Amino acid sequence: MGVQTAVELALHPDRLLPAEPHVRDIARRLYDAVRDAPLISPHGHVDPHLLLDNQPFPDPATLFVTPDHYVTRLLHADGVDLADLGVGQGPLSPDAARRVWRLLCEHWPVFRGTPVRYWLEAELAEIFGVTERPSAATADAIYDQVSARLRDDAYRPRALYARFRLAVLVTTSDPCDDLAAHAALAADPTWHGRVIPAFRPDAYLEPAQPGWPDAVARLGVAAGVDTGDYPGYLQALAERRRYFIAHGARSTDHSHPDARTDPLGPAEAARIYRAALAGAATPDEAVAFRRHMLTEMARMSCDDGLVMTLHPGVRRNHHLPTFERYGPDTGHDIPIRIEFTDALRPLLNRYGTYPGFHLVVFTVDETVWSRELAPLAGFYPSLYVGSPWWFLDAPAAQRRFREAVSETAGFTRTSGFVDDTRAFCSIPARHDLSRRVDAGVLARLVADYRLSEDEAAQTAVDLVSTQPTRVFKL
Amino acid sequence: MGVQTAVELALHPDRLLPAEPHVRDIARRLYDAVRDAPLISPHGHVDPHLLLDNQPFPDPATLFVTPDHYVTRLLHADGVDLADLGVGQGPLSPDAARRVWRLLCEHWPVFRGTPVRYWLEAELAEIFGVTERPSAATADAIYDQVSARLRDDAYRPRALYARFRLAVLVTTSDPCDDLAAHAALAADPTWHGRVIPAFRPDAYLEPAQPGWPDAVARLGVAAGVDTGDYPGYLQALAERRRYFIAHGARSTDHSHPDARTDPLGPAEAARIYRAALAGAATPDEAVAFRRHMLTEMARMSCDDGLVMTLHPGVRRNHHLPTFERYGPDTGHDIPIRIEFTDALRPLLNRYGTYPGFHLVVFTVDETVWSRELAPLAGFYPSLYVGSPWWFLDAPAAQRRFREAVSETAGFTRTSGFVDDTRAFCSIPARHDLSRRVDAGVLARLVADYRLSEDEAAQTAVDLVSTQPTRVFKL
Amino acid sequence: MGVQTAVELALHPDRLLPAEPHVRDIARRLYDAVRDAPLISPHGHVDPHLLLDNQPFPDPATLFVTPDHYVTRLLHADGVDLADLGVGQGPLSPDAARRVWRLLCEHWPVFRGTPVRYWLEAELAEIFGVTERPSAATADAIYDQVSARLRDDAYRPRALYARFRLAVLVTTSDPCDDLAAHAALAADPTWHGRVIPAFRPDAYLEPAQPGWPDAVARLGVAAGVDTGDYPGYLQALAERRRYFIAHGARSTDHSHPDARTDPLGPAEAARIYRAALAGAATPDEAVAFRRHMLTEMARMSCDDGLVMTLHPGVRRNHHLPTFERYGPDTGHDIPIRIEFTDALRPLLNRYGTYPGFHLVVFTVDETVWSRELAPLAGFYPSLYVGSPWWFLDAPAAQRRFREAVSETAGFTRTSGFVDDTRAFCSIPARHDLSRRVDAGVLARLVADYRLSEDEAAQTAVDLVSTQPTRVFKL
Repeated sequence: MGVQTAVELALHPDRLLPAEPHVRDIARRLYDAVRDAPLISPHGHVDPHLLLDNQPFPDPATLFVTPDHYVTRLLHADGVDLADLGVGQGPLSPDAARRVWRLLCEHWPVFRGTPVRYWLEAELAEIFGVTERPSAATADAIYDQVSARLRDDAYRPRALYARFRLAVLVTTSDPCDDLAAHAALAADPTWHGRVIPAFRPDAYLEPAQPGWPDAVARLGVAAGVDTGDYPGYLQALAERRRYFIAHGARSTDHSHPDARTDPLGPAEAARIYRAALAGAATPDEAVAFRRHMLTEMARMSCDDGLVMTLHPGVRRNHHLPTFERYGPDTGHDIPIRIEFTDALRPLLNRYGTYPGFHLVVFTVDETVWSRELAPLAGFYPSLYVGSPWWFLDAPAAQRRFREAVSETAGFTRTSGFVDDTRAFCSIPARHDLSRRVDAGVLARLVADYRLSEDEAAQTAVDLVSTQPTRVFKL
Repeated sequence: MGVQTAVELALHPDRLLPAEPHVRDIARRLYDAVRDAPLISPHGHVDPHLLLDNQPFPDPATLFVTPDHYVTRLLHADGVDLADLGVGQGPLSPDAARRVWRLLCEHWPVFRGTPVRYWLEAELAEIFGVTERPSAATADAIYDQVSARLRDDAYRPRALYARFRLAVLVTTSDPCDDLAAHAALAADPTWHGRVIPAFRPDAYLEPAQPGWPDAVARLGVAAGVDTGDYPGYLQALAERRRYFIAHGARSTDHSHPDARTDPLGPAEAARIYRAALAGAATPDEAVAFRRHMLTEMARMSCDDGLVMTLHPGVRRNHHLPTFERYGPDTGHDIPIRIEFTDALRPLLNRYGTYPGFHLVVFTVDETVWSRELAPLAGFYPSLYVGSPWWFLDAPAAQRRFREAVSETAGFTRTSGFVDDTRAFCSIPARHDLSRRVDAGVLARLVADYRLSEDEAAQTAVDLVSTQPTRVFKL
Repeated sequence: MGVQTAVELALHPDRLLPAEPHVRDIARRLYDAVRDAPLISPHGHVDPHLLLDNQPFPDPATLFVTPDHYVTRLLHADGVDLADLGVGQGPLSPDAARRVWRLLCEHWPVFRGTPVRYWLEAELAEIFGVTERPSAATADAIYDQVSARLRDDAYRPRALYARFRLAVLVTTSDPCDDLAAHAALAADPTWHGRVIPAFRPDAYLEPAQPGWPDAVARLGVAAGVDTGDYPGYLQALAERRRYFIAHGARSTDHSHPDARTDPLGPAEAARIYRAALAGAATPDEAVAFRRHMLTEMARMSCDDGLVMTLHPGVRRNHHLPTFERYGPDTGHDIPIRIEFTDALRPLLNRYGTYPGFHLVVFTVDETVWSRELAPLAGFYPSLYVGSPWWFLDAPAAQRRFREAVSETAGFTRTSGFVDDTRAFCSIPARHDLSRRVDAGVLARLVADYRLSEDEAAQTAVDLVSTQPTRVFKL
């Protein structure tokens, strides 16, 4: 289109609200009731050192591009080499950072229609005061403007935490993590936020993973328990859960290729455990053990009260050459079909009505929303349908989620919003997007005369406050 | 929200119609054309004794809560024990009934966004004249008001049948049922309705079911045929179908975990039958026999004209502890993925173009609507896509159904609405909901200039009259 | 409805645009930007002889009904025998043609809500000036009117090609085809269009197909290469691809029951090839060979630059009696569930980032749009999501496509519209439908303030020009 001149970047106050004027009016009132409510973030991937150290973000590329696979994947699909985006290269030089930023701005049109575009625009406009649409023509000016702000103390992580109205931020941590960062933060009298860990034991539950014997040995060291046999292994896991609880943890997080939960007898579990330690477990045995351990995790949650969250059904590191060069989380984890009705049945038959046990199930296969998850959550008091996750964390998908789930399970059987991000500055935009979408969903129910506006407003408020607090025991 | 004061319960005349004013105007006219049309109920679970005996409903809890797993399941998910809802306890004492009713009213918010809420509100307001929203504060007053009405003869089942404008009500009956209730009703000169049975042989077609040899023995007794061998078994089934036809039956109903229809040779079928009678059939043989018998049922339908309806793909009694304590139909039947293209191929290759044969296929896995059922119904004259069923019997799901099916198979290849309920008083609200949704769907086609309004009105009328009458041969 | 009098057939200029007036205004402007853009048809089934010979279409039935399984299938489902529609009978007599046409008009209501109705109305009104809705009452008059036009030179194929503003028309051709029709057209100085072949090798890649040894022998003859061993077979395929490229081909097309691409070692491939030639390959070996060959096709595309298009997941000729009587493509190809994440992984790990390699993936199982195809296309530069195909080539399905794909992969990772038709006169209506739907989708993004109108207009134009030209290398 020739040389592009600068175009205004402005966030319209009614963005994402329904188009029909009467419904938009209702939605606007519902959104107003939650717009400024504190942000509860029950699951995510922000590094606690970010808030402990409170160092300035180094540059716009490191803040918005290089570590965020939501952003780099579409640029890669459009032909940009991940190396040119700084992936896998450690800190960027000032020149490299500016070049990465220019690549983002030049490829701005590829993000049309995506939530990445929505989040980035909201971050640039609301946090950094940017008023021009990113493009080749405006890249340098925006880079300079954001860079200047980043040197200001008001843009350090702790200041942003307060400005974002974050009430609690849950990180995802390895069971062997000493949680020193969480402890130091909690002990810091100048810090008034709440950053707590979630217990993420996947690597220790999958004997098929390379290096698994070493992992469970490390687990034993961390727990002060001999993991040379199966009872010791269970004890070590229970120990580490207790350690996490002592550091504020309220939940565990699990992500396996499938959701099966078939229990093994203790002798069989112990036998496979020994074989796996010796590197002699068959692939089938390794899978059987992992499935068994998911039910064991539920048993431990009944004991210690940790909420169990499940994010299955993703083929990790789909493109091996990229994985080998750049490592995991580089944009090529691809969803697969998932099944819950039969898979979770053993677990739910044991613990599905256990008082106080909470299992929150997320999916990237949306076919299970109406078919399996809503019916399960509509009967089992323990099971909650997790809000749309990852690829589905976007306006149309979130509307499909509400349409698919609410008619069977209402609103109270859903988890409330989960931002699930490592991009700290995107947290407010992600929650805001969700609040706008839910306001629209509820407004349509009001316009349909299926819900009165007072109830819709109550529901909107519940979904961002009572509901996540209760479901995640925060 | 503190003590709740009473809030008005009022049904808006435009509820569920599209929000856009111009489309709503069209939809209102289309809905007006069908609003008062008689109700055709080709599949459901009302007990014929209800209309034969014509006793008053005992109390609001027994009418609206205890026997209806649509209602009890969400209360259970919200932490209410099924025992506290009177499930599995026989008749409720007056005190118990009032307590159950209070539980429903106190938990009213959990039904927000569900069709259960829509149905209950319509029943309370339209049938019983309730004008306040159920809540802890209003529970007793509503209980008293409904109870008073129930003592009035105008609220006995036969009076309601007439008031509901029911034209025909199909019940679901066991093949060994003597259909005495249906016969007595038909013979009653004071009764002017039509209540006919459907033939539901699942239990007799699944050798894997506990007690199957006894079941087929009972079948033999009922039919006056020795079911000691396979030909006798087939004859007994054909006999009982004839008996049902003589009592007005127009259809059979089938629900198995999958929809496969692979036929066996007669010798192999006879061999498995003998083995199964002796308790010696393998699980695989039992499944093979059940699949074979589905095609045999189609063959018999070609002979005797009974419409065949298929409701597969549900894992029954998912939570064994609840099943053991309270029995079946207690809210934890959970859908599973289903497949029709390959599964129905043997049956359709034999009978898919047989003159007059009708196969109506329902699903709780909505992924098959556009992928399998609409393409099948768009070619095979025998196959009709059943309207949204069970978990999908709700406004948004019904709209998804029309969007997924109409573009491939139009409207004439669908079944018309099926209420599938045991909750007698919910029948008008269920049909009304469906009529409103279809009016909206058709209005959108008119607003899109894809259909003229005269055609849309014809289609709306067809869908509630000609279409179900023709598809179910009523 | 008694005797039907003639009703007006008129195409509203705003058909298919969003109903909400403000959104419709935006959509109208976006549609105006693309309404008259040339038609790019990168995949279809028009016979090149149609344009080479430029003979008049014989009659309305042959033009609109008999060869088009989109039309005949719904008539068949409504009880019309395919024989009565002229299927499988060669040229129709004038009387027979008129009878077929009457059947279409009498059954006009069964097409309500389908795109077939939309296309036919657009063709009748826009191309042939028909002003009355088809019905029993108007059948003969419309037949006469269309027949009269067909005798006019302005309605011969080449004149229509120009009138339709077709820029390029891709046909689908057998690898052994000598492409004489394409060559003659290209050499014709009086012809100013562009008709190029696509290479469709399915029959040569599936050893399980009856007559496969003969097919590969024919391939060898066509290529002038001995296909008696595996290297010769590969060489023959590469030769024929070169031959197609020399005749203008830019793409290959592949349709198998599944999308797996597991490569075999060369020795194993050669061994199965020999066995298959001898009729001694097992069914599993035949499947393994076919899957291997899909990856080989990708390898050849990396070499010779042909775009690879994939249309899997259809059970062909579902109803064997119809297939045996009338042959293939008679309306009973039925979709099945498909899987891409694991299936395409071997191919994508080898060639997914190969410079210039393009793989366009189409599906009739819409569940993979958000779950698999958008995530894959959102990372791999080689993979594009094909536009909605076959049963999904309709307004609501196309909207679902954009909603499911755009939030993960934007617009630039999709293929642009593909009409995939053998019904030459339906091409403009199909493209027009798609342009209207995309205008509506983009208008909703503008109304949501997610996209500015200048960007939406750019995107609309890209989707009908830059995008298909680039993706299909036209």
